[in-house]
Amino acid sequence: MKFTLLQKDNKSKARAGEITTDHGTIQTPIFMPVGTVASVKGVHQRELRDDIDPDIILGNTYHLYLRPSTGILEEAGGLHKFMGWDRNILTDSGGYQVYSLSGNRKIKEEGVKFKSHIDGSNHFFTPENVMEIQRTIGADIIMAFDECTPYPCDYQYAKRSMHLTHRWLDRCISHLEKLPFKYGYSQSFFPIVQGSTYKDLRKQSAEYIASVGAEGNAIGGLSVGEPAEEMYEMAELVCDILPEDKPRYLMGVGTPINILENIALGVDMFDCVMPTRNARNGMLFTAHGTINIKNKKWENDFSPLDEMGITFVDTEYSKAYLRHLFAANEYLGKQIATIHNLGFYLWLVRTARERILAGDFQEWKTKMVQQMDKRL
Amino acid sequence: MKFTLLQKDNKSKARAGEITTDHGTIQTPIFMPVGTVASVKGVHQRELRDDIDPDIILGNTYHLYLRPSTGILEEAGGLHKFMGWDRNILTDSGGYQVYSLSGNRKIKEEGVKFKSHIDGSNHFFTPENVMEIQRTIGADIIMAFDECTPYPCDYQYAKRSMHLTHRWLDRCISHLEKLPFKYGYSQSFFPIVQGSTYKDLRKQSAEYIASVGAEGNAIGGLSVGEPAEEMYEMAELVCDILPEDKPRYLMGVGTPINILENIALGVDMFDCVMPTRNARNGMLFTAHGTINIKNKKWENDFSPLDEMGITFVDTEYSKAYLRHLFAANEYLGKQIATIHNLGFYLWLVRTARERILAGDFQEWKTKMVQQMDKRL
Ligand SMILES: [Zn+2]
Ligand SMILES: [Zn+2]
Repeated sequence: MKFTLLQKDNKSKARAGEITTDHGTIQTPIFMPVGTVASVKGVHQRELRDDIDPDIILGNTYHLYLRPSTGILEEAGGLHKFMGWDRNILTDSGGYQVYSLSGNRKIKEEGVKFKSHIDGSNHFFTPENVMEIQRTIGADIIMAFDECTPYPCDYQYAKRSMHLTHRWLDRCISHLEKLPFKYGYSQSFFPIVQGSTYKDLRKQSAEYIASVGAEGNAIGGLSVGEPAEEMYEMAELVCDILPEDKPRYLMGVGTPINILENIALGVDMFDCVMPTRNARNGMLFTAHGTINIKNKKWENDFSPLDEMGITFVDTEYSKAYLRHLFAANEYLGKQIATIHNLGFYLWLVRTARERILAGDFQEWKTKMVQQMDKRL
Repeated sequence: MKFTLLQKDNKSKARAGEITTDHGTIQTPIFMPVGTVASVKGVHQRELRDDIDPDIILGNTYHLYLRPSTGILEEAGGLHKFMGWDRNILTDSGGYQVYSLSGNRKIKEEGVKFKSHIDGSNHFFTPENVMEIQRTIGADIIMAFDECTPYPCDYQYAKRSMHLTHRWLDRCISHLEKLPFKYGYSQSFFPIVQGSTYKDLRKQSAEYIASVGAEGNAIGGLSVGEPAEEMYEMAELVCDILPEDKPRYLMGVGTPINILENIALGVDMFDCVMPTRNARNGMLFTAHGTINIKNKKWENDFSPLDEMGITFVDTEYSKAYLRHLFAANEYLGKQIATIHNLGFYLWLVRTARERILAGDFQEWKTKMVQQMDKRL
């Protein structure tokens, strides 16, 4: 992987860059649509590629490990071939999903025991086997196995957990040294900063993570329920410590406003289920605020879904039609809303990048944040 | 509407023709995908138009009347504008759906009382108001309000019901004379032959329907559970009576084999939920038989979905990938299977047409029927 920093904004800490991997170029800042189980829900690969057009998507190790299973993915020659996606893929480490199985998992020094949400079968994730699983899935960027603390989290727990994450990181790195690439292309490894919302822990963790000299670095444990201001404070503190010449990935963030604010703090990469999950609930993000398309007020609004026309759905369908599809529980409604939201998120990061390169990011960001903070 | 009979097969009763309406040309034989509630489930209008490419689709009056409602469709300027489909549309009369509400409907001379499956509210369909509703929905071809008898059906009931259908037909026709077109384009009216599986009733009904001189004629009450041989016998008997210079529409039929057999008997138009409904259950129709993609045997079959490559899904996705999407209950699986099946049905009728025009339909049909009668 090669990261080129092309431009630093002079009124904020925003950056425009370019990551190059064996599966092509990723222009940053980037938003990565979430394709949990080898599919961005309701979106054809063709639409993802030609209409939404991200340089990279995300897959979830926990889900892919269970279904279709590591064995099938290996037989297929990796996730890219299995799902028919030849651009970049990043996989998370499975940790986040495993911790969400609250009653059904147990964290120990060695790793995490958990029960499958599908059939209740027992499984064990360790830093070592998660590296092996991610090697087999074959993403271009793979993530360290960490513990993601909940919010709120008491100081002592957050501190112990952070050190566990650091020890696991060492195990990930040593184990990866023994694992060759499986499919003829490289895979880059990103460690993850933890430390909850405690400044001293975040600083300590960022310094530790920076010290391992990885090809890129991630910030975890945010967007888990804390106020946005705390998220921004932690992200800024960590970005200031992480090396400038490596991409920075803020995991699981967020709303369009969160994304712009974090770009301004120096974050380069984002992923979040919000545009896709909220779409399936009838919530649309637009440059002028959010729309709940289920509201009766759209029933006879025959104007285009979004006059910006970022993706084909914005002009091919009307608000009244989409409202009807949701009222009638027609899946096409979820498909349309998903393409709209992902199209909008990608437009947002592409435009942020253009503004950084043009030198007027900060003004544009201020205007957009104000504009988007509305319900239509 | 103009119907041109282009070619009659000389070894069967198959015909190739062309229907021209204000929304374009329909090349027959044709299969009409079912878009129940202003959406072919899981299929974008763009895919329907560019990939599946039917000249006409079907909408269901019962569903559209309830949701989005006749009022909204009128405000939109008709169903074409509402859903963004500028080719032909045919609407059924709502009768079939209403009779399916077994406990919740009552048939009288005046019409049918029924309760909405959505909210239990009371409604009343009559030949007159169903013509009004269909005028408002605005399909290019609208259907008579008939009673569709179940199978089996005793002779006396079938006879009484047939005469009721005939009396309702007279009321539909007189009422339509008072109803101008709403949106500046023509709407053609098709009456429906009933008579269950009784030859004398079918003959009597076909003669009555032929006598009204409509622009096209339909055969109803088949594919309701009777053996295929009885369906073919009734279809042939009726086609032989219906005028040759008008299109013939066999309602609700059927499997790919049913379609080819009925084309051979002189049917020009078909609709059926089978390709779409079965797709959502993981059943694929192919030129070499049917596939249950949920079977474990496809788990590691990384070959293309269908080497025929009729639509993009056939070559973009593998059998193993589609099997995985069904196993993981990912909606994209249903979307892929639906496009595949509809693409195949449209390929089937287009190829039948080519063979009729080329003069070797009968040989091709015999080979295809044999080939498709398999489980892969
Ligand atoms: Zn530590
Ligand atoms: Zn009669």
